[in-house]
Amino acid sequence: MSAVPSLRHLLLLRPRLRFIALSTSSSPFLSYAPSHHFSPSSLRVLSSSSSPTLTQEEADEAVGKGSSLIDVNPPRGTRDFPPDDMRLRNWLFQNFREVSRILSFEEVDFPVLESEALFIRKAGEEITQQLYNFEDKGGRRVVLRPEITPSLARLVIKQGKSVSLPLKWFTIGQCWRYERMTRGRRREHYQWNMDIFGVSKVRGEAELIQAIVLLFERLGINSSDVGIRVSSRKVLQAVLQMYAIPDNLFTQVCVIVDKLGKITREEIEKELLSLGVSIQAVNGIIEVLSLKSLSKLEEVLGSEEEAVSELKKLFSLAESYGYADWICFDASVVRGLAYYTGIVFEAFDREGKLRAICGGGRYDRLLSTFGSEDIPACGFGFGDAVIVELLKDKGLLPDLAHRVDDIVFPLDEVLDGTASRIASSLRKKGRSVDLVEDKRLKWVFKHAERIGASRLILVGNSEWERGAVRVKNLSTREEFEVKIDELV
Amino acid sequence: MSAVPSLRHLLLLRPRLRFIALSTSSSPFLSYAPSHHFSPSSLRVLSSSSSPTLTQEEADEAVGKGSSLIDVNPPRGTRDFPPDDMRLRNWLFQNFREVSRILSFEEVDFPVLESEALFIRKAGEEITQQLYNFEDKGGRRVVLRPEITPSLARLVIKQGKSVSLPLKWFTIGQCWRYERMTRGRRREHYQWNMDIFGVSKVRGEAELIQAIVLLFERLGINSSDVGIRVSSRKVLQAVLQMYAIPDNLFTQVCVIVDKLGKITREEIEKELLSLGVSIQAVNGIIEVLSLKSLSKLEEVLGSEEEAVSELKKLFSLAESYGYADWICFDASVVRGLAYYTGIVFEAFDREGKLRAICGGGRYDRLLSTFGSEDIPACGFGFGDAVIVELLKDKGLLPDLAHRVDDIVFPLDEVLDGTASRIASSLRKKGRSVDLVEDKRLKWVFKHAERIGASRLILVGNSEWERGAVRVKNLSTREEFEVKIDELV
Repeated sequence: MSAVPSLRHLLLLRPRLRFIALSTSSSPFLSYAPSHHFSPSSLRVLSSSSSPTLTQEEADEAVGKGSSLIDVNPPRGTRDFPPDDMRLRNWLFQNFREVSRILSFEEVDFPVLESEALFIRKAGEEITQQLYNFEDKGGRRVVLRPEITPSLARLVIKQGKSVSLPLKWFTIGQCWRYERMTRGRRREHYQWNMDIFGVSKVRGEAELIQAIVLLFERLGINSSDVGIRVSSRKVLQAVLQMYAIPDNLFTQVCVIVDKLGKITREEIEKELLSLGVSIQAVNGIIEVLSLKSLSKLEEVLGSEEEAVSELKKLFSLAESYGYADWICFDASVVRGLAYYTGIVFEAFDREGKLRAICGGGRYDRLLSTFGSEDIPACGFGFGDAVIVELLKDKGLLPDLAHRVDDIVFPLDEVLDGTASRIASSLRKKGRSVDLVEDKRLKWVFKHAERIGASRLILVGNSEWERGAVRVKNLSTREEFEVKIDELV
Repeated sequence: MSAVPSLRHLLLLRPRLRFIALSTSSSPFLSYAPSHHFSPSSLRVLSSSSSPTLTQEEADEAVGKGSSLIDVNPPRGTRDFPPDDMRLRNWLFQNFREVSRILSFEEVDFPVLESEALFIRKAGEEITQQLYNFEDKGGRRVVLRPEITPSLARLVIKQGKSVSLPLKWFTIGQCWRYERMTRGRRREHYQWNMDIFGVSKVRGEAELIQAIVLLFERLGINSSDVGIRVSSRKVLQAVLQMYAIPDNLFTQVCVIVDKLGKITREEIEKELLSLGVSIQAVNGIIEVLSLKSLSKLEEVLGSEEEAVSELKKLFSLAESYGYADWICFDASVVRGLAYYTGIVFEAFDREGKLRAICGGGRYDRLLSTFGSEDIPACGFGFGDAVIVELLKDKGLLPDLAHRVDDIVFPLDEVLDGTASRIASSLRKKGRSVDLVEDKRLKWVFKHAERIGASRLILVGNSEWERGAVRVKNLSTREEFEVKIDELV
């Protein structure tokens, strides 16, 4: 608890601090978590959590006996947000919020800690196998939520008849997964969710996709950078019916075939066969999933099939909205969540370098799995990771430096009251004011540049005797003497 | 998983839903968590968590075999934020952010899950006795943070020499406490923190208090509603020196005497005596803590005492800033956190009905407890609970209804493409547009009122043949026919 650190402490500690400062200079935003609900290859991190940490022994040695240096990193797989990263996050979230407002969605939120029961599903999804779960002191099973949709559904059930349908809600929140850490993975990300309850038509999906496209456009991304692949779980459902595979296998089949491209075809076959799906059906499923054209799908399934008519309707609406060039049919899109029942979609970079940017779909039967009446619903999740990687690749990251209006600097200690008065009066007008003391003028000028200050207000004795201050406009380099009561 | 709920299910479920809807109508904001870092009488909740829950048995019976209704409440002691509550929270946070901007603070953030080691302190503080802690799957001791200051200190150490001092950071984040739940307590709250590292003078505290006052003023609260009590831990330190009580007991004495007024004087005495403090010293401490005037304090401790000169400087600066009418000296303010070392303060409602609204102080020796070099620092925490109670009492809660610019409503299903085109074009101009389908016109008008829409745009066949729509201005009740390309 000594306030005066030993010289040895200072000397030994400094290299450590410098190293950490360097290792955090690459933004955690650029090495990020995934899109809609975590995908297996996601959560790569290059920065914070991989910065080497002193062993306890080394730390003890470095700081001498008595007080050892704590681990200055956040828990493994999590991020701090220093000012630069926070500005980027706020900017991104602000765009999420603005698009949600334009689509007339209302914001909601839920506890990051939820009951585990809300996330226990038996379909074998990765998301439920990597729950960040605990037992609390009261013996309750709780979990840092891996996704937000179940909380949303819970609140819809809780609100019951008091809400009028359709209900259009969005939320931005942190989601967690627990998996064995290999180097460069992350355990948390933030996710923007937009969900519609009470719209059974594909209008719901069409609105969600417009929101995603509007977001991309606001960020400066165009349809030659990014596309949105669309399919429907009803395609798979129709194929299962063709092969007389029982309905109760549907969800598990979806979860398995979602892994196509992530694990080998042989492994997929093996998993499907072990469910009791015949080899003919397996081949049929994989063949249909390779279709990239809606007219081909119509040939295979027939135009009467719901999967086909809904997809055609969505593509027709896309023409009306004006985002047809952003979307394409791709039967291989299944998405990894158990509860999707209809149209599913995901945004991808056309260069194919990144993981899915976001994903979503229709989940008309989620509420009944919670014991309530079903309400038709659809939604998407849009992570804060891949989008930032993409923006960086495209050179679209905004310049978000700290911006301050005025620096007030008393040139003499006896003027600290006067400086307070001036700062206070400017602040009451809404200007952002940094009051600086006990520094050299040279430092103040450097500081002004660093924080992007517009004006420097120097409070000096001789000017003050005339009831004035010196004001330096930092962009024009002009300098004036201004009477206190004329300062605005 | 059946999409068609049984009639029995519907009939039995409905009363439950209605009851829950009623029980959540009182805002969780109005029954809230505490101010700076939790205080013992805090976390009272009247709404969500106290809404009775069906037992598992009742739920099973209600929905029939197979799928039982999940608990629709968030985990005990936590809140959901439906749209109304979320708007209020966003409004409050927006004010926190705006004041922080005006004071030229930069926003930062940290994981809500931290290493337990960061919060293990031995002074007997309530906050460290109610840690919401767990062991994760990797055997690490982790905790849902009870306060944010230690994370802030961790990041300051991590950034090391790469940051230039002084450093002015703010953050808004959720904090957790775990305690045995009695009816009407809460386990989480949100907290606005502002902290300054690298300013040793009371200028730091003076700036923080200006931020708090500016916040109050923005919210419509004045100095006859609220005051800020100020004292210094150095008062206690001086008294301990007078009685030759060893320095290493200082923190524990502070934590104990902070309970004055919460537990009986006898219990305080007992705790101090068991530390080894003499009965004379106990009486001396309690006598000094009853002082409400700075000149009296000066008489007791002498004008040379740091506690006195710093407090006098703060009150003099308060005159210059123009907030002297908000603050008063009160030696009984100690604050419950172990790490404060100098000036401490807390805001209170002058009617004395509520708990502390916020609290903070100087903590110059926190970093050395983490094994790093000390940097002088001060900060405060401002919870989202008491302030909302106060605003409600004073009738100052803002009107924050949902506001939408336009409703686009196709009068015929064949016009859904046209409606999409119109909605899309208005949205690209930044207008918020709700696209409504499959409803009766009467419902649409009611809905327009509910969401505060400015215009209703009716897409009908006959107008459409003329390339036009009907636009109804919902405030003036005027109605026009407008050409599509003239619609703005």
